[in-house]
Amino acid sequence: MRAVVRRQDALVLDDLPTPVPDHGQVLVKTLACGICGSDLHALHGLAHMAELGRRSGASIDLDAAKDVVFGHEFCAEVLDYGPGSERPFKPGTRVVSTPYVLGPQGFELVGYSNRFSGGFGEYMVLQEPLLLPVPNGLSDAYAALTEPFAVGVHAVARAGVKPGSVALIIGCGPVGLAVLAALKAEGIGPVVACDFSPERRRVAELMGADVVIDPAVTSPHAGWAALDVPATLAERGAWGLAGRTVKDAVIFECVGAPGMLQSIIEGAPPLSRIVAVGVCMQRDSFEPAIAINKELGVEFAFAYSQEEFSATLHRIAEGMIDVRHIMSEEIALDQIPSAFARLSSAPNLVKVIVKPWGGTLSDARSPDLVSV
Amino acid sequence: MRAVVRRQDALVLDDLPTPVPDHGQVLVKTLACGICGSDLHALHGLAHMAELGRRSGASIDLDAAKDVVFGHEFCAEVLDYGPGSERPFKPGTRVVSTPYVLGPQGFELVGYSNRFSGGFGEYMVLQEPLLLPVPNGLSDAYAALTEPFAVGVHAVARAGVKPGSVALIIGCGPVGLAVLAALKAEGIGPVVACDFSPERRRVAELMGADVVIDPAVTSPHAGWAALDVPATLAERGAWGLAGRTVKDAVIFECVGAPGMLQSIIEGAPPLSRIVAVGVCMQRDSFEPAIAINKELGVEFAFAYSQEEFSATLHRIAEGMIDVRHIMSEEIALDQIPSAFARLSSAPNLVKVIVKPWGGTLSDARSPDLVSV
Repeated sequence: MRAVVRRQDALVLDDLPTPVPDHGQVLVKTLACGICGSDLHALHGLAHMAELGRRSGASIDLDAAKDVVFGHEFCAEVLDYGPGSERPFKPGTRVVSTPYVLGPQGFELVGYSNRFSGGFGEYMVLQEPLLLPVPNGLSDAYAALTEPFAVGVHAVARAGVKPGSVALIIGCGPVGLAVLAALKAEGIGPVVACDFSPERRRVAELMGADVVIDPAVTSPHAGWAALDVPATLAERGAWGLAGRTVKDAVIFECVGAPGMLQSIIEGAPPLSRIVAVGVCMQRDSFEPAIAINKELGVEFAFAYSQEEFSATLHRIAEGMIDVRHIMSEEIALDQIPSAFARLSSAPNLVKVIVKPWGGTLSDARSPDLVSV
Repeated sequence: MRAVVRRQDALVLDDLPTPVPDHGQVLVKTLACGICGSDLHALHGLAHMAELGRRSGASIDLDAAKDVVFGHEFCAEVLDYGPGSERPFKPGTRVVSTPYVLGPQGFELVGYSNRFSGGFGEYMVLQEPLLLPVPNGLSDAYAALTEPFAVGVHAVARAGVKPGSVALIIGCGPVGLAVLAALKAEGIGPVVACDFSPERRRVAELMGADVVIDPAVTSPHAGWAALDVPATLAERGAWGLAGRTVKDAVIFECVGAPGMLQSIIEGAPPLSRIVAVGVCMQRDSFEPAIAINKELGVEFAFAYSQEEFSATLHRIAEGMIDVRHIMSEEIALDQIPSAFARLSSAPNLVKVIVKPWGGTLSDARSPDLVSV
């Protein structure tokens, strides 16, 4: 099969053997696959990423010196099953899946594995019990967006956000916009969204952000002063006496760069919760005493549950989560290397979708794509 | 009045004017006051502490160049009231209080204020609505321990610990032992406690720790492998498929030194919660990607609510929280400077109580002190 291989820090279009499904596995044809910010990191930082995975307790043996086919945000078509299957979905059924496959040493991440290639190839092997059929009428590209939007749904669930909470989103890349969509689907607001890129701010506005901030002009935290939050730690401590109502403030860190957490800790009002969704791969530093004085909480959010993934798919299909606006481009396999370069340098791009079987270079916002 | 004053990085016994209570305030005579780890930090680091306070949103104007009388863990006797008071407690009533007083610019911390002196002086001014009468029979020294033990009660409440949770306490100084006491009072366990000091481990054992670990010999995290926690992030992600039960793991960071958080992030099992109770005054660094991969949560815990403070006092009086074992010494005012030196260098000491009106140099564990 044709696949774009990450080989020694480069992306190469190559011919690979078509994968063969084992027990419990399914052979699928890749219809659409998103490029994720983690893929951009992994192009040059895969060895570090693998090391962090091992130090996080993963038992997988991802070797950055060997070939990897990226792509974990996909929609695919069922072709065939491994031995002993009950074949729950007819060949031709369009499916999405959480990107996990059971290898000899446990679960591996499809798209970050030497064994299981991802959606930047024409075929993949997936795990049968994880497959979810795509509801009728949802386009391949939109179905592929289930994965990044599920990250937002999970982050919002993890934050314990409730109606009446004030949410601030730092960074309106795909992660921040997925959080925005999940908040709006839950009816939570006001939502303040913040990004240096005018295009990303424009998309945030289209997706329902109540306030959109350019951090080059206004501090994202400037608005807290207008809310009824405790101004001093002593007020916080003498709570029973002060008897004031606190607005629940939740801040989503969706940039994933060093220094972001400290800037939020400095800017956040007392008692607020921070959800770290952007993945910062470097060592980061902060001042714990300020986080303690303000009594902040930080939830580190990773991925999603199977249930959240399924709920996200259905919210997209029902229009509760509007994925249209984040799509910037559709490309073919051979355009992946240049798309990586553009995504790394042009923060105005949001989501690029790869179509291994001949993506049209259509504008993602053209009417034929709007099939929800 | 006689008071030990922090003056230019030194502790000096001096004569100060007796404070005068304003509206809503009470003049009290200090009966007993604990030395807190924060006081040890503040002796040389008060300017930095004040700066961190301001950067945390406090509006107070603590000036480290001016005199401060430390002491915020106290038991006192009501002497007189400020103007316009309804005098709710008779003079002679023994009281404890959260260490807050309302100054011209808002609440200030008694013991970390240029305006309101703390319990290292013979008299203090407190805020009338915050006073809690000490139940009969509870000694002055034990009542003074309400403050540090309330920190533990609050940290446990903030962790959302529930029966069935496994708790690990890193550091068995007064903060760690207060967490231990609060966990035991709630019937939560097993509790694993860990400290380099043999004396502190001995106290942890006396206070009911189920497992006591010397980190010089065994990793505090070695025990997680025996629990049914997900071993890999992929297992975590494919949760619906793996269908395993997770033990709820909560780790209390009670040391407050740089590097502790990162060592916990590296050692903690996936999905565990970390409660930072020890106050790390320096900038600290960690690897966010590992915290994200494991999907950890970090709660920064500060102080307590008025309700938690009151509940702690009553739990101590009723024997549900056993404070006896943490008391190392009782001293007089003029022994404070040498006690600071010994506390800073001898981790075997736990809690030293100051009695401004003539503390006997008795062993805290002698029968006359055991009045609970």
